[in-house]
Amino acid sequence: MARSLVVVLAGGIGGGRLAFGLSRLLRTADLMVVANTGDDFEHLGLAICPAIDAALYALAGLDDTAAGHGRRDDSLVFMQTLGALGGAGWWRLGDRDLALQVARTGRLRVGELLSTITADLAGRLGVGSPIVPMSDDPVQTRLRTDGGWIALHDYAIRQAARPVVHEVVFAGAIAARPHPDILAALAGPRLRAVLVGPDNPFSSIDPILAIPGMRAAIAECTAPILAISPLGGRPTADGPIARMLRDLGISASAAGIARRYAHMLDGFILDHKDAGQISGLPIRAFAAELGTDTPEDCEALARVALETADSLVG
Amino acid sequence: MARSLVVVLAGGIGGGRLAFGLSRLLRTADLMVVANTGDDFEHLGLAICPAIDAALYALAGLDDTAAGHGRRDDSLVFMQTLGALGGAGWWRLGDRDLALQVARTGRLRVGELLSTITADLAGRLGVGSPIVPMSDDPVQTRLRTDGGWIALHDYAIRQAARPVVHEVVFAGAIAARPHPDILAALAGPRLRAVLVGPDNPFSSIDPILAIPGMRAAIAECTAPILAISPLGGRPTADGPIARMLRDLGISASAAGIARRYAHMLDGFILDHKDAGQISGLPIRAFAAELGTDTPEDCEALARVALETADSLVG
Repeated sequence: MARSLVVVLAGGIGGGRLAFGLSRLLRTADLMVVANTGDDFEHLGLAICPAIDAALYALAGLDDTAAGHGRRDDSLVFMQTLGALGGAGWWRLGDRDLALQVARTGRLRVGELLSTITADLAGRLGVGSPIVPMSDDPVQTRLRTDGGWIALHDYAIRQAARPVVHEVVFAGAIAARPHPDILAALAGPRLRAVLVGPDNPFSSIDPILAIPGMRAAIAECTAPILAISPLGGRPTADGPIARMLRDLGISASAAGIARRYAHMLDGFILDHKDAGQISGLPIRAFAAELGTDTPEDCEALARVALETADSLVG
Repeated sequence: MARSLVVVLAGGIGGGRLAFGLSRLLRTADLMVVANTGDDFEHLGLAICPAIDAALYALAGLDDTAAGHGRRDDSLVFMQTLGALGGAGWWRLGDRDLALQVARTGRLRVGELLSTITADLAGRLGVGSPIVPMSDDPVQTRLRTDGGWIALHDYAIRQAARPVVHEVVFAGAIAARPHPDILAALAGPRLRAVLVGPDNPFSSIDPILAIPGMRAAIAECTAPILAISPLGGRPTADGPIARMLRDLGISASAAGIARRYAHMLDGFILDHKDAGQISGLPIRAFAAELGTDTPEDCEALARVALETADSLVG
């Protein structure tokens, strides 16, 4: 059987953009997105799933790359009215994006599984490749900061990554079960590669790995496992990811991230500008252009990732 | 102390329109709307409160009189997207109206009282007169029909009043407490009149009266109590209200409604076209123009109601 299936671990926006790039190169049946749900949160009574939506909108060609989340060219009638009614406005919800949040929330409240809802919504948005929540069980990424325990969206969006982070935990992870489709894909004969998306490893990839059985399933898979540095493309020395790395006592560099994940990776791709960090790494590393601003950037990154992964086979 | 306070029992749209008419004649401090919450329901995970919103939008000058609920000139970007995502579209939620529903739902979920939220939202919409939910405790109007037990919105909107209604009950009413502001207003020396809005008595006014203590507080108040027939203005012989009356074995006429409420009323206003039904009624009845289509209609109805109520004093 042809090894054609590429599994992307998508922590957030980076993973969504990588998946979008891959979708331009692969048949829909050959791409599976595993979405981090640790950053899911309730806002205004709505169930918001940032990583799922990042992938959903990216694969549907609808993502708002400038705003960072939500749908492109969305109208803001709801937000403007909500502001006048005293509602919290720190999480942007365009009128079209809101329809997704409301549709999902209503279905969750009557007991449907997040994975079932996600699959249905993806189909309705014309997305053929499966976007699978890492688990249908609740997992919550919590940060211990100098301002107390807060959720990731609170840290990253509402407080603009200003608090100092001392610790990251994934509440509920110990009792969560990986979605069976993910385990089947990782154990299956069609697996071509596992790609770890360019997202914050501590807050956005680790929650996926924190689910019992997930790390082992990845370790045991027969395909190459490749991660892409989230410190790429734009200057990131003062960005939220670099800041959290420093807070946690990790070298705020691609090399620091590569070392952290070395034990589970067959390869690591970092940005051209970080190429000087390759020598001395305990892992095979490759330099590439890591931008994901345009569709062409995403496709180029996806192509490099695929070719690099294929080169690691055998 | 001047008897200036008018309390409107608002079951739904009719009460909202009457309150709007009164707001054109009275000082804001002289009008209190008591809103039926028996028809509140959860839709798409949102807490929808039709009677509160009817009053809120009417008093804010924002109600959509053509659509029957929601805000005038609202955009439908959310609804159209929701439709494409498979969400239920039988309850119209414009983008601006949705902001109200989401703001309210989010606040209810964190434990705020419906009355507190309503007062705050009213203030933000520029509504000065209090709109008070009949109770902060949950009451649910349930209809036993030939299609089983259903909620009022399900009957009236989703199923377009097609099922045959055998019985109406108000689940939770027995344990609900009237909002204290209502009791204070009814017992206070400022009370000028209690006006029962032109809404379906069985499904929309009875839930208010079903709350222990409410009926007695109304019976004991020292001001005239006047109801306005909901069968007015437009041809209603085949309308939902007439149909439900017939289902319940009541004469589907203004006289039938007047008789039903005679024991608690000092007077009843019915439509000019129903003036022939006045003779023989066990209650003082008056004929008037009951239309509420235009602001002028609403004001005229309010003026007649006030003058009639005042004429009943002493």
